[in-house]
Amino acid sequence: MTDRTLDTGTAYGRPRPTHRAELTEVGAGTPMGELLRRYWHPIGLAADANATPRKVRVLGEDLILFRDGAGQPGLLYPHCAHRGASLYYGKVEARGIRCCYHGWLFAAQGHCLEQPCEPEGGRARESARQPWYPLEERYGLIWAYLGPPDRKPVLPRYECLEQLADGEMLEADDHSIGGGGPQIIDCNWLQHYENLVDPFHVVILHSSFSGTQFVEQMAVMPQVTWDVQAHSVRTLSVRKLPDGKTFRRISEAGLPTLRVIPNPRVGSYGMVESLGWILPIDDHHFRIYVVGRVKEKGDLHRMRSRLGGKLWEELTEEEHQRYPGDYEAMTSQGPIAHHSEEHLATSDRGIVMLRRLLQRQLEVVAQGGDPAGVFFDPDTPPVKFTAGNFLEG
Amino acid sequence: MTDRTLDTGTAYGRPRPTHRAELTEVGAGTPMGELLRRYWHPIGLAADANATPRKVRVLGEDLILFRDGAGQPGLLYPHCAHRGASLYYGKVEARGIRCCYHGWLFAAQGHCLEQPCEPEGGRARESARQPWYPLEERYGLIWAYLGPPDRKPVLPRYECLEQLADGEMLEADDHSIGGGGPQIIDCNWLQHYENLVDPFHVVILHSSFSGTQFVEQMAVMPQVTWDVQAHSVRTLSVRKLPDGKTFRRISEAGLPTLRVIPNPRVGSYGMVESLGWILPIDDHHFRIYVVGRVKEKGDLHRMRSRLGGKLWEELTEEEHQRYPGDYEAMTSQGPIAHHSEEHLATSDRGIVMLRRLLQRQLEVVAQGGDPAGVFFDPDTPPVKFTAGNFLEG
Amino acid sequence: MTDRTLDTGTAYGRPRPTHRAELTEVGAGTPMGELLRRYWHPIGLAADANATPRKVRVLGEDLILFRDGAGQPGLLYPHCAHRGASLYYGKVEARGIRCCYHGWLFAAQGHCLEQPCEPEGGRARESARQPWYPLEERYGLIWAYLGPPDRKPVLPRYECLEQLADGEMLEADDHSIGGGGPQIIDCNWLQHYENLVDPFHVVILHSSFSGTQFVEQMAVMPQVTWDVQAHSVRTLSVRKLPDGKTFRRISEAGLPTLRVIPNPRVGSYGMVESLGWILPIDDHHFRIYVVGRVKEKGDLHRMRSRLGGKLWEELTEEEHQRYPGDYEAMTSQGPIAHHSEEHLATSDRGIVMLRRLLQRQLEVVAQGGDPAGVFFDPDTPPVKFTAGNFLEG
Repeated sequence: MTDRTLDTGTAYGRPRPTHRAELTEVGAGTPMGELLRRYWHPIGLAADANATPRKVRVLGEDLILFRDGAGQPGLLYPHCAHRGASLYYGKVEARGIRCCYHGWLFAAQGHCLEQPCEPEGGRARESARQPWYPLEERYGLIWAYLGPPDRKPVLPRYECLEQLADGEMLEADDHSIGGGGPQIIDCNWLQHYENLVDPFHVVILHSSFSGTQFVEQMAVMPQVTWDVQAHSVRTLSVRKLPDGKTFRRISEAGLPTLRVIPNPRVGSYGMVESLGWILPIDDHHFRIYVVGRVKEKGDLHRMRSRLGGKLWEELTEEEHQRYPGDYEAMTSQGPIAHHSEEHLATSDRGIVMLRRLLQRQLEVVAQGGDPAGVFFDPDTPPVKFTAGNFLEG
Repeated sequence: MTDRTLDTGTAYGRPRPTHRAELTEVGAGTPMGELLRRYWHPIGLAADANATPRKVRVLGEDLILFRDGAGQPGLLYPHCAHRGASLYYGKVEARGIRCCYHGWLFAAQGHCLEQPCEPEGGRARESARQPWYPLEERYGLIWAYLGPPDRKPVLPRYECLEQLADGEMLEADDHSIGGGGPQIIDCNWLQHYENLVDPFHVVILHSSFSGTQFVEQMAVMPQVTWDVQAHSVRTLSVRKLPDGKTFRRISEAGLPTLRVIPNPRVGSYGMVESLGWILPIDDHHFRIYVVGRVKEKGDLHRMRSRLGGKLWEELTEEEHQRYPGDYEAMTSQGPIAHHSEEHLATSDRGIVMLRRLLQRQLEVVAQGGDPAGVFFDPDTPPVKFTAGNFLEG
Repeated sequence: MTDRTLDTGTAYGRPRPTHRAELTEVGAGTPMGELLRRYWHPIGLAADANATPRKVRVLGEDLILFRDGAGQPGLLYPHCAHRGASLYYGKVEARGIRCCYHGWLFAAQGHCLEQPCEPEGGRARESARQPWYPLEERYGLIWAYLGPPDRKPVLPRYECLEQLADGEMLEADDHSIGGGGPQIIDCNWLQHYENLVDPFHVVILHSSFSGTQFVEQMAVMPQVTWDVQAHSVRTLSVRKLPDGKTFRRISEAGLPTLRVIPNPRVGSYGMVESLGWILPIDDHHFRIYVVGRVKEKGDLHRMRSRLGGKLWEELTEEEHQRYPGDYEAMTSQGPIAHHSEEHLATSDRGIVMLRRLLQRQLEVVAQGGDPAGVFFDPDTPPVKFTAGNFLEG
């Protein structure tokens, strides 16, 4: 050995990275899986439930969505209770869906109505109920509840989607607007949920990296404060604009997966105009459903980011590398981000608050309680948010 | 909590599905793997063994099939006994197959005949025998025995393939006729074997779902009885036809994987005209070899199902969903069906009998005995079946 | 049972194959992984380090290679120390690479220089150092040291690359010349390393199988002896040529992954003209970097094997089967060769010696020592080899 200076800080010998499983994994029986199962989740557009059985994947569970001839949507376990052929190949009829293999007919709530190869249409057909989940329809979306039946809450209404101005209508979209990439995003949902309380990345990722992706005033470095509400973490970003005015932007990450994000293109100032729900497909995939007040059909869809006029799927790999967006940032954290390797800083206080809010709900559920943001009284008034873009002075 | 009615029968909290490993898994050393290894299995058409080494996969084992210059077929472990290069890259010669890497030459029964880079052609070459399996050829197929040498039975003959009428010939086919899909079917072999004792699915899957896939009389709901023979489960389906006649159809599922299924197109009544053997490729894949008496070359191949004139591989995913057949029903049960979730009914009695027949053979083998359907006397007469389509009255 | 002769040597009941993990697996913390981490490895051409971040994979580790505006190359752990977004999407600047997500800027040695969303550019930025590895550049390649900092040796020089004749220049190539296949070869590195001390396969694989792949004199069966040097295994192949002359060929497998192989096309006799380094990408993949003395740019690249004028990637699967080369022989041994099933013979003595040489180095490292072939004195003279093609008599 000579007395050369030793290298410090090299990657040699660093420990294997780990992630916080209790905050990220969504399968049945896991802590976060059980917490998320206490809420309703959008699992499709209303039009997705129709006479053609459709595969959906939610919280790690594969299911079949359909709509019977009477207009009733159904969400069933895919493998027929009889011998397991998939109801994806079933025939949708007036009263339910019929398995292709031996013709057992199941209603939207799983009741077996016919067993045509059995004597008397199946004397024991009552006992062969197909596992199902309750559905509701609202705001152009279909909502499912995958949790314990005795904890099923009321499907919430939201004030910002209930009060429409003249000429406004609601529109629902399933293109994962706000995800910055394809419809199905191949990383853990929490990576996107945390992105909601991180207003700083807008200044870097969406401005200096990808050109001014939104509008000029978003590129100004904001003063940021966060506070924890009953069922959300709220972010207040204050920007002094060149003209001396003050731009105040409030966004919220609502329990359990709610995007309450004012339009980053800031077309007009005012209260938030749309809501988004992150749907965890499984531990490594999510998608986003959005509902908003629009003037014209297609307005929401037109909100999808473009770079030089091109949608994400029209860009080359070289362009993705050169002009990364939310999708590239989030998915490159890994299928699940390595929490053991993070160096959180003052600009990450919102993320710390959000994790704590989730952690508290995990504890409540573990102790037999109901998490924040669920309610059981159907007369509960619509949920209010304070999010919006506001110009002052 | 309000006193709303609780949802019952939902998919929440259902246990993880399981399968019966002892009936389905085929690897060496597993119960079913050892049972299946007591029988000869067809592993290729006679023409598949030729001067070009061919990869075959049987019961979870990868092997190389070839035919030496003297016409002797060989089935060898793929990795050369020397240093493991694959004999797939070998050169077939008069006396055997030569490894590409260092030229060791192996005969059909694995004897190492030459080691050209060794002094005197390898003084110890006797000790480097390549693992092999015995083969026989019959009915246009190549048969392999993968079991313990001291239990090797006689390769059976079958009466229905031995007695040819004038103008009849035998034809062998490897397109998995009867599987309703591609040549290699991606689910466990038992799903298809059980399909053989299930005459009811014909009325639903092959009639109301896919249109009249076979002939009109098959769409009539039959009266079905089953009985267990020494080495098969036999299904008798009786149909009263509109013209007052009685259509009796007998099919058999023979040990260990035998399809004894009369032509479902019922071109002419009479005894069964072809036999099929399900070859378990591994736990999640199988294929079917068929031999039949035909009038013209290609008759067997023309038996493959068509929908609107199109073969399975010519249909779109939408058409597969809308007009499912055996392939869709079987594979959608999963790579291996979830036996823990079944609700077997009276129409599934044949399946219960077949599983019991298999279960009994597993016990016999575990106790050191020989399973039903194997025999050791080369003078044993050909195996007879009673299967056929018969018209009465 | 009859008294038929029993089959012997069949594949029934053979044990599951195993490999020698300590000689093959390269991950951090494994015996061979730690031994390999005591040496410098080439990880790219000098030109690969530029302003576009590049993914490289070395010894099972994913890393990002770049070159800052001052010309300094850097090799960093891919996930940003802040919140884990990949530096593959980073922007290369004068002083380092900036993460796309929140703009943290890292120097080539991982120091965090800026945290633009933090007060005062990040008061604690010193503590957020990005894991990095030291690099050096030589012979047109970039070399990395992934081992313990206190054991970092001097990057060797090699005599055969230091002494250039008039009109000669050095050329570096990354097409895995000598691997006989694509740039990335999908099997364990040891399979190729062992190939270096195996002169006999040239006579079979490269002559009788693929036609005369090299030159006629290589097809003559050689007399071979091996000896173990301080940091290599040396192979001497002596061939009596038809004209009575003696062709002596010496090649070496140097520690840890060095190819010291004279040109098998034997254009001119003399000392070895190029060196190759096998880079283990991970347990199941490797590639080869080569540096050689050439007369014209592109000479090295023109050394790639062709069959009927076609490069490996231009051949069909049928041609690969019919005319196998090193790639087919090596990869068909499996992702990692099955050492438990080998039958090593006298022609494999070089392989036995090479494994023992590796085994001894594993022991030295386990006991806290430094393996053969590393040195710490920067004034150590260039490494010499005796390899070459020589004509005598």
